[in-house]
Amino acid sequence: MTALMPEGVAVARDLVGPALAASVDRLSPEVRTVAAYHLGLTDAQGRPTGSGGKALRPALALLSARAAGAAPQRGVPAGVAVELVHNFSLLHDDIMDGDIERRHRPTAWKIYGVGAAILAGDGLLALAQDILLEDGGPQGSWAARCLSAAVLRLIAGQGSDLAFEQRDDVTLGECLTMAGDKTAALMACACSIGAVYIGAPPALAMGLAGFGAHAGLAFQLTDDLLGIWGAPEITGKPVRSDLRSRKKSLPVVAALTSGTAQGSQLAELLAGKEPLTEDDLVVAQRLVEESGGKRWTEAEADTQLAEAERCLAETDMPDDVRAEFSAIAQFITTRQS
Amino acid sequence: MTALMPEGVAVARDLVGPALAASVDRLSPEVRTVAAYHLGLTDAQGRPTGSGGKALRPALALLSARAAGAAPQRGVPAGVAVELVHNFSLLHDDIMDGDIERRHRPTAWKIYGVGAAILAGDGLLALAQDILLEDGGPQGSWAARCLSAAVLRLIAGQGSDLAFEQRDDVTLGECLTMAGDKTAALMACACSIGAVYIGAPPALAMGLAGFGAHAGLAFQLTDDLLGIWGAPEITGKPVRSDLRSRKKSLPVVAALTSGTAQGSQLAELLAGKEPLTEDDLVVAQRLVEESGGKRWTEAEADTQLAEAERCLAETDMPDDVRAEFSAIAQFITTRQS
Repeated sequence: MTALMPEGVAVARDLVGPALAASVDRLSPEVRTVAAYHLGLTDAQGRPTGSGGKALRPALALLSARAAGAAPQRGVPAGVAVELVHNFSLLHDDIMDGDIERRHRPTAWKIYGVGAAILAGDGLLALAQDILLEDGGPQGSWAARCLSAAVLRLIAGQGSDLAFEQRDDVTLGECLTMAGDKTAALMACACSIGAVYIGAPPALAMGLAGFGAHAGLAFQLTDDLLGIWGAPEITGKPVRSDLRSRKKSLPVVAALTSGTAQGSQLAELLAGKEPLTEDDLVVAQRLVEESGGKRWTEAEADTQLAEAERCLAETDMPDDVRAEFSAIAQFITTRQS
Repeated sequence: MTALMPEGVAVARDLVGPALAASVDRLSPEVRTVAAYHLGLTDAQGRPTGSGGKALRPALALLSARAAGAAPQRGVPAGVAVELVHNFSLLHDDIMDGDIERRHRPTAWKIYGVGAAILAGDGLLALAQDILLEDGGPQGSWAARCLSAAVLRLIAGQGSDLAFEQRDDVTLGECLTMAGDKTAALMACACSIGAVYIGAPPALAMGLAGFGAHAGLAFQLTDDLLGIWGAPEITGKPVRSDLRSRKKSLPVVAALTSGTAQGSQLAELLAGKEPLTEDDLVVAQRLVEESGGKRWTEAEADTQLAEAERCLAETDMPDDVRAEFSAIAQFITTRQS
């Protein structure tokens, strides 16, 4: 099945897009060029593309302001800041992971070099904090703290992810913690920062953060399923790409730690240093399935989504806002395979 | 002549050192390992070294708190934050510049890889903001803004510096702006952030920032002189190292734009792609001198130092604090060659 993008995401793009572009304009020319390319605002020749990213996190930030009773416009700086941080991490992760393509275009470091891409990522991170702090009020400060705490977890998660590549004894618990840090922490921040930025009471901010943390984990679990079973035309990546790169994704680690014969066979297959053949990949995919790795991941994604919905139900906010949060959570956890 | 390290720098190291080490302990294990090595807290095997950096910027931050009438301890979080940002930029600059040695040790990326060093730099930057924001008061927020603005200028300066490498028409004005961004902005921040952090009036913060900006430029001008005429045992770098790497430092650009015959000869010598011989380097050094590049840089350093002293004299603060600021400015602009 294919889920439709919730309307709130397009609305957020219209509201946050111009502010995001304006914020990038504050960077110096050399840094701006790389940042604008990465964000999809310009092509590799520096010509405007008239587009940009999909604005999922800004949409959550604006909803979060609305949950606190404010107009979505009030959440724009928070939405910009979260989107800048998300893109800071993508810019740097692409270098660390050696990825040469993102959103069907060459990655920034492939075009501008590693140094320029590091610097552009740094610029986006610094800009995110600056935008939250520039009004000088206490709310901007609380939002900036909400963001810096999420950034520290995001960095911790990326550190674990890099370390996992060198290890063959990663536990499922470690893997879930890593996903919680690398993906869910910024999602939790996106879902609460709009409310924090307009000075909402802590109970609301915490409820929204809880929703975002669970929805973020459900999102990562779904993404990991798509990394093995997703159709290339939907994921934009080669078929079985996470197996190809021997990524210690959640379904793989669930399989490896399942205590089944298929889990042991998978471990043997992945232990080699040679590139995996297409036949190997088909076998590996089957082993993850037969060992219960796929089933566990699907069940865990459903559990996390249910927990997200529970947080949403228990948190006081206008009904239409709750419905939009729920629609986005459903959208990002739809398994298109 | 050799200037003695002002006592305030050692005092700052004693006060800020433990807080700096504690802040790094908040990073996740993988990120902490690289950060602690870079900061000199551990060796490449992870063993404590019992030492650390020279704490120049923390010393300025503590003085800045004292300028506002507070005990130096009150400025510790500000001193930690500035030192973290300084080291974030060193970690990333070493990758961008391909430098393999710093403080007589292999650079972090040489030991741990580019990815891990990028991530450690990111961690230090995020941590710096987090530390200023964690008390939740308005002063922390003002200090965080002071820092984010300085970081944005630092990034702009590094972007210009990288771009200058590809250009042969850099003007002296562009070069001064670059040094103002890359070096002086964080120095201005260090000199004012302690006062900002304890809520000092804007006039004091601005006076201190002015002092720091001029002292920072004088420092960079001096550093550029040492990069050509400094003795290796003092600079820790090979003799004439900035000429060897064809760096567009201030004395070189002053020579190239001097309109003299020697300036043109220097341009010709540096235009080649071949590594410069020792003989070439001796000639280049003489050409920078004969074209007036050295003289201009020395005069400009003296002018900036005088401006720094003027800012200091015009800003209201206890006399002993003013004397210590002045001693540090003299120390960092002493030409040991």
